[in-house]
Amino acid sequence: MEPLQTAIVDAGPTYLRVRGYDVLELMQQATFTDMIFLLHHTRPPTPAERRLVDAILIGSADHGPGAPSCAAARLAASGNRQSPSAAIAAGVLTIGDEHGGAGSTCMELIASGLERCRTNGTTHAQEAAALVDAARSNKTRLPGLGHRVHSVVDPRVGVLFNLARDNGLAGDGIAFARALEAAMAERIKPIPLNIDGALAAILHDLGFPPMVGKLMFIVSRVAGISAEVLEEYTREKPMRIKLPVAYDGAPPRQNGTQQHDRRSEHGEQ
Amino acid sequence: MEPLQTAIVDAGPTYLRVRGYDVLELMQQATFTDMIFLLHHTRPPTPAERRLVDAILIGSADHGPGAPSCAAARLAASGNRQSPSAAIAAGVLTIGDEHGGAGSTCMELIASGLERCRTNGTTHAQEAAALVDAARSNKTRLPGLGHRVHSVVDPRVGVLFNLARDNGLAGDGIAFARALEAAMAERIKPIPLNIDGALAAILHDLGFPPMVGKLMFIVSRVAGISAEVLEEYTREKPMRIKLPVAYDGAPPRQNGTQQHDRRSEHGEQ
Amino acid sequence: MEPLQTAIVDAGPTYLRVRGYDVLELMQQATFTDMIFLLHHTRPPTPAERRLVDAILIGSADHGPGAPSCAAARLAASGNRQSPSAAIAAGVLTIGDEHGGAGSTCMELIASGLERCRTNGTTHAQEAAALVDAARSNKTRLPGLGHRVHSVVDPRVGVLFNLARDNGLAGDGIAFARALEAAMAERIKPIPLNIDGALAAILHDLGFPPMVGKLMFIVSRVAGISAEVLEEYTREKPMRIKLPVAYDGAPPRQNGTQQHDRRSEHGEQ
Amino acid sequence: MEPLQTAIVDAGPTYLRVRGYDVLELMQQATFTDMIFLLHHTRPPTPAERRLVDAILIGSADHGPGAPSCAAARLAASGNRQSPSAAIAAGVLTIGDEHGGAGSTCMELIASGLERCRTNGTTHAQEAAALVDAARSNKTRLPGLGHRVHSVVDPRVGVLFNLARDNGLAGDGIAFARALEAAMAERIKPIPLNIDGALAAILHDLGFPPMVGKLMFIVSRVAGISAEVLEEYTREKPMRIKLPVAYDGAPPRQNGTQQHDRRSEHGEQ
Repeated sequence: MEPLQTAIVDAGPTYLRVRGYDVLELMQQATFTDMIFLLHHTRPPTPAERRLVDAILIGSADHGPGAPSCAAARLAASGNRQSPSAAIAAGVLTIGDEHGGAGSTCMELIASGLERCRTNGTTHAQEAAALVDAARSNKTRLPGLGHRVHSVVDPRVGVLFNLARDNGLAGDGIAFARALEAAMAERIKPIPLNIDGALAAILHDLGFPPMVGKLMFIVSRVAGISAEVLEEYTREKPMRIKLPVAYDGAPPRQNGTQQHDRRSEHGEQ
Repeated sequence: MEPLQTAIVDAGPTYLRVRGYDVLELMQQATFTDMIFLLHHTRPPTPAERRLVDAILIGSADHGPGAPSCAAARLAASGNRQSPSAAIAAGVLTIGDEHGGAGSTCMELIASGLERCRTNGTTHAQEAAALVDAARSNKTRLPGLGHRVHSVVDPRVGVLFNLARDNGLAGDGIAFARALEAAMAERIKPIPLNIDGALAAILHDLGFPPMVGKLMFIVSRVAGISAEVLEEYTREKPMRIKLPVAYDGAPPRQNGTQQHDRRSEHGEQ
Repeated sequence: MEPLQTAIVDAGPTYLRVRGYDVLELMQQATFTDMIFLLHHTRPPTPAERRLVDAILIGSADHGPGAPSCAAARLAASGNRQSPSAAIAAGVLTIGDEHGGAGSTCMELIASGLERCRTNGTTHAQEAAALVDAARSNKTRLPGLGHRVHSVVDPRVGVLFNLARDNGLAGDGIAFARALEAAMAERIKPIPLNIDGALAAILHDLGFPPMVGKLMFIVSRVAGISAEVLEEYTREKPMRIKLPVAYDGAPPRQNGTQQHDRRSEHGEQ
Repeated sequence: MEPLQTAIVDAGPTYLRVRGYDVLELMQQATFTDMIFLLHHTRPPTPAERRLVDAILIGSADHGPGAPSCAAARLAASGNRQSPSAAIAAGVLTIGDEHGGAGSTCMELIASGLERCRTNGTTHAQEAAALVDAARSNKTRLPGLGHRVHSVVDPRVGVLFNLARDNGLAGDGIAFARALEAAMAERIKPIPLNIDGALAAILHDLGFPPMVGKLMFIVSRVAGISAEVLEEYTREKPMRIKLPVAYDGAPPRQNGTQQHDRRSEHGEQ
């Protein structure tokens, strides 16, 4: 088969480099956050960028066993004690546009909103209002707003945006995210920015493509999932989690496997 | 927490029913294919429906270790011998719109094409031509056409369509799939229907929603992935699969972690 | 790289064979259960074998959304609506020795127990008693016994064993499983055989290696997981499942990141 | 259901704490590596501990697309473009005792070897020799030794052990790992310590339980898998990876599904 081309890692018997940087040197001088940045970019971060990415990774790492990612990982650890990898993967699989991954769709929203400002000569407020109105008429949710625990304000958002400002990295992404939040409050109801929205605004300002919104959340959350799996293995017995169930389907009926025909279908459905 | 509502399984200490049918009776009289149909529908299949679903499930079950689903499962079995579940799950995860799951997007295409025929009073050929032309101008691929091994004709397609006809179940779905294949041959080049396209046409004619296209492929392919994992555990040593790699990224460079600043970025990228 | 060797599938542009059998013919004449048997064996099943494998696959397919496999799949479907494969894989990952996969460890137990009977010239009852006593003194659980819903009797067990007897396939595996159940009742307390234990006994009598106990459960349960995922996508909103959580860890404390030293660790833990 | 007890995260509408530490403060002052340590321990690391954990996480993060974890993730990204989570999870699932997870089994080996030294009053060299001899007679491999790319010496090992020494954290774990390597060279052949063995020695000296060996590798490698998935989505077309296959099974034969009986089995197998 043709070799897999890559611009990330170059490895040989005596060397290991990531994007041209010697991993042995990085091991002695850099932080894991530098490595994460380097892997997803083409260079290590500046100190200001490192501070922001650390804050994002710390803020997203864990939100307790009730979050779908951690709950699924614990269910897998509860039924399958043979492989911590399996439990962690089960947790990762719950991460999508609806849980944790809204950073990506929010980055797309921010990028397209800012593009329209440039093209149309409009303000952030005008384009944010248009997006809020479109979401209302399409009955869709805007990504990056609202949290089922932090319902009044997600305290991580202010911390992230202050860090961006203090480090001289607050840009159009943050401004547009705040415009979205304000337009939502004015035109529908107050739904505060959440960690996904803040992460999206900052990663946009750092120049990452939208997919990195979801990827950074996953890289971060795996640290928390891993700790939850360790606790489940260590403190709990297998098969202990029992979710309550209520059946609301068809009543008991005679087995019709053999004699079934298409007509009877209409009566049953 | 609120109980999980379901209309599928009702289980208690002395009974187990699926959609109202006694599982103990099904175990004695039905086939696994009946159960698969019942789980995804509201009743067991008729004999004609059972024949078609069996053919679909048999035809999709395995295509050898080179298919992404089986290759990924073998890689996982090669590195992680602790959990066959982990290897099977790795295989399942490769199944998407691009591999195995095109049945779903093809079912959507068929449903929308037929809807346009009804709305516009057009023929299958006219709407199929419009879809082919749109795919060409958008530079997208039409799902359900083309196979990297069965490049001239996928022999499973004819078998499935003949079975549908002989069992009196060939409907608009099959007709529209053939119209798509013909329009493709006339307007671009001959790219034959593949198993996903045939599966999509038949599941459409059986009344399933588009998502079932992907689900049936997964249910089927898991049987093959499982057998591939069994063979990997049984016949092969761990860590034996080595894919060739070629690095084409940045050349070796001095570690710039500490002294990096934003200016230097432009020179580097 | 070296080619992946396989004895399962042979595929070329115009043909597709599984263990030498033409898949096109199988699609027209066989059942999916035949294919599952063939993939994990070297030939299709006899009618009697097919009946037993169908019963196993039907009996294990689904036990409702409270089972870890289905609950984890629903959590993934709740947070990640982009990929049904991801949700199904999350469900598969919960299957291990503790959930659904006990068939494999039970097959090992049966095989080793029968081996000792042959070597030592002992009866099933004697070796079963020894295993029960060993489990008690090691404080381990015997696989294949006990079910959290079917706590008095798992009704699927009698159905499976009657089918085996009626089809002339009841062998030493079933006899030894019943001996284990009896020894448990006499020496500790009545804990009935469950579906995993019955499946293990029968698959042993059919000549499969222990790993197939887990694999058959997975192949079967994927059908149920798939249906549960379809229901979750169709009937439910994203992010609706909220598991209750209680924190019992360290109280709030001053951030000690920077000033932490090794001495303070002892006071804190 | 009963609430899930946890000692890791305490979250409420206005606060979020990990092991009692305010996450908002950590976001401003700590590094992601501090958070990873805190999640798997009960306190943040000292500066010396942080340096070692950073080096471990950097050194394990990526080894190119040929590693099973990255190859499987790329296969999943190649077939399923709908969910980066699915691709990352596929990569995680390849991590087991044979790939990346040997840190855990190596930590168990080190802990039990050191325990025997204490109990028996023997030297590291004596117990290491006993372990090497036992592995030879059982024909098992010792975890933490050997690397298919870094076959003469894994250069990351020296870096890690020097960092441990320079930071005053080199302990019995490192000493025993070096004793194992020496015993292997003397008694069988030189197989150098690899990154898993070095990671195991250091995590042992930092006081972590063996399971953390595998977990730290996963947390680290997810960063690399994520970057490989980003590159696959960005640079490559779907379905591009084709592994070569060679069939060595049964020749083509007549379909025997229906007429098969048990006698014919013996002739075929």
